[in-house]
Amino acid sequence: MVGGSVPVFDEIILSTTLMNRVISFNSVSGTLVCQAGCVLEELSRYVEERGFVMPLDLGAKGSCHIGGNVATNAGGLRFLRYGSLHGTVLGLEVVLADGTVLDCLTSLRKDNTGYDLKQLFIGSEGTLGVITAVSIQCPPKPRAVNVAFLGCPGFAEVLQTFSSGKELLGEILSAYEFMDAECMWLVTHHLRLASPVQESPFYVLVETSGSRAGHDSEKLSDFLEQALSSGLVTDGTVATDQTRLKALWALRERISEALSRDGYVYKYDLSLPTERLYDLVSDLRARLGSQAKHVVGYGHLGDGNLHLNVTSEAFSPSLLADLEPYVYEWTARQRGSVSAEHGLGFKKRGVLSYSKPPEALRLMQQLKALLDPKGILNPYKTLPAQA
Amino acid sequence: MVGGSVPVFDEIILSTTLMNRVISFNSVSGTLVCQAGCVLEELSRYVEERGFVMPLDLGAKGSCHIGGNVATNAGGLRFLRYGSLHGTVLGLEVVLADGTVLDCLTSLRKDNTGYDLKQLFIGSEGTLGVITAVSIQCPPKPRAVNVAFLGCPGFAEVLQTFSSGKELLGEILSAYEFMDAECMWLVTHHLRLASPVQESPFYVLVETSGSRAGHDSEKLSDFLEQALSSGLVTDGTVATDQTRLKALWALRERISEALSRDGYVYKYDLSLPTERLYDLVSDLRARLGSQAKHVVGYGHLGDGNLHLNVTSEAFSPSLLADLEPYVYEWTARQRGSVSAEHGLGFKKRGVLSYSKPPEALRLMQQLKALLDPKGILNPYKTLPAQA
Repeated sequence: MVGGSVPVFDEIILSTTLMNRVISFNSVSGTLVCQAGCVLEELSRYVEERGFVMPLDLGAKGSCHIGGNVATNAGGLRFLRYGSLHGTVLGLEVVLADGTVLDCLTSLRKDNTGYDLKQLFIGSEGTLGVITAVSIQCPPKPRAVNVAFLGCPGFAEVLQTFSSGKELLGEILSAYEFMDAECMWLVTHHLRLASPVQESPFYVLVETSGSRAGHDSEKLSDFLEQALSSGLVTDGTVATDQTRLKALWALRERISEALSRDGYVYKYDLSLPTERLYDLVSDLRARLGSQAKHVVGYGHLGDGNLHLNVTSEAFSPSLLADLEPYVYEWTARQRGSVSAEHGLGFKKRGVLSYSKPPEALRLMQQLKALLDPKGILNPYKTLPAQA
Repeated sequence: MVGGSVPVFDEIILSTTLMNRVISFNSVSGTLVCQAGCVLEELSRYVEERGFVMPLDLGAKGSCHIGGNVATNAGGLRFLRYGSLHGTVLGLEVVLADGTVLDCLTSLRKDNTGYDLKQLFIGSEGTLGVITAVSIQCPPKPRAVNVAFLGCPGFAEVLQTFSSGKELLGEILSAYEFMDAECMWLVTHHLRLASPVQESPFYVLVETSGSRAGHDSEKLSDFLEQALSSGLVTDGTVATDQTRLKALWALRERISEALSRDGYVYKYDLSLPTERLYDLVSDLRARLGSQAKHVVGYGHLGDGNLHLNVTSEAFSPSLLADLEPYVYEWTARQRGSVSAEHGLGFKKRGVLSYSKPPEALRLMQQLKALLDPKGILNPYKTLPAQA
């Protein structure tokens, strides 16, 4: 997406594929310690067999490595419930640029002895050190999972349904995702998926995860009853078994795949105040007119994270010129983030300054110079090229 | 406790007392932005009136400032539920040593644009910069809070009751605290508090916080029934109203006050693997014999955090020599932390190396030199004096 892991010029590629061993798992505390090359889906399977879940989940789980997840501070589908890796990662082993092995691989939930060095490496995209092992806190596996897929008449109703969900579902709300009608068109048209609800301007996917099925379904049905009777939601369906659950999640998770079949895709991953989040999509649709095939908005609404995507038949420099810097300037005016979860990598390192002031950029460059004076760690990435 | 905020030689004292303004509060997302000198208890009141709670709570809430909480990465009573400040703090404004104002005061849940600089200042005890404003994520205020105070026949049962609580209380478990019989003796003897349960070798305080009172009390009574019928717990009481809740919490929160009335107090705040956590207390009791008045253990068991305290009539160098480095070496052998939540400050900066390897210490010193080359920010604190 941003080319953070793609070699572009003269880089040497390091593979952690063979570093795929679980080092330890504490089945009382749920602490997993493993090497950086473990595949996320395999770790999920491993901890789920032991009554826990990984605190993160994302579309690429079948191929991504946990080391890469931590290096990019991956967000994904469980962020709303379990929070960021800055909170769930307990320890790291990192190899520094000079070959020093920095052993911060402890499994303590609390440790205030000096600076929390591991935080430096979470989300720095491999530019400050190479993560070789990870200690991570896994939450207990929920005993009951429900998914509701709902149609909403407008974006205001998407937001109100979220507020109502937070109130009535409380601590069992584990995901609140949204997609617009154009997204639904793309997945039904290109991937032949069937929409489970009536056609609507917006759709939301609400997931609950809890420890007691009876309590959870009572909370969920009260929430749905209120949402339907108040007109916030016009149609909906609920799934509790694995097959139906996966089918509903597929509508949301496969949007990216449907987009790639639609033509050339311009991708943006933004954090915005939720109230203004969809205005950018509407603005752009008007601004781009017939130049674009589709302008779509979807994402992790619960986290204020919009995935904005535009498609055209083929790459068009004039369309790009209408998109950038417009999208970045719009985001900066809301004090949003021009990269909510995908990082900056190679392709977006030039837009850092839309979300961070010059003083922050200067300190980042000082940290890079301190930790990697020769610039050998993932060069050309994350920070803008120095003038 | 560690003297992190106490001037010792030639320091200039900065007061943030007048920086006590709430800058903004978003009543949909629960994001609070405020100046560093706001008192935690006042912030709690402010957000509770608006349907939210602060993600941290601690005994000193009536006097501590939020800026200090963040600078010391305060843990406290809600850590088990809402996690560390590394996860809940969304943004900071920090004044650097050269006077630069570093504005990272955003309110975004997700932002992967460059390095997450705010993390550097969380827990660095003011040695890298002065926090002047904080943006923090407040969770919704739970509608039902219950506290159970239980007696356990042994430490093994304290641990098993915790496992059972995690299973049966699930997502509503919000605190799991323990104290030993000597702690109970101290609070009943010195503070004239009454124990609400039969005399037991150990006591635990279990708190639940949830969105639906009926569901929560059903979960809690199932948990208590199982704990009592299996013999893990020998006696117990439950509170749901504010007055009784506070009275039960007081037994745990006022241990520190009772200790200070018992004589000179040697205090340790350790993270240890939960299985071994109480062994250190038993070991020390045997080792110190009649030199000590009391050797007590209590703390945030759910976080693996032991508060180990020893009292004697007056300060005794020979007692101290029996305690240190014994306690630190014991902790280091378990790969524990010699300061779980209280930081290192002035008094414990010399013991950093029991929990961190030399490579980590070197990097900390490099960060200090980068951010505060003249050593003017909270000097003589956190890092060991350089040889």
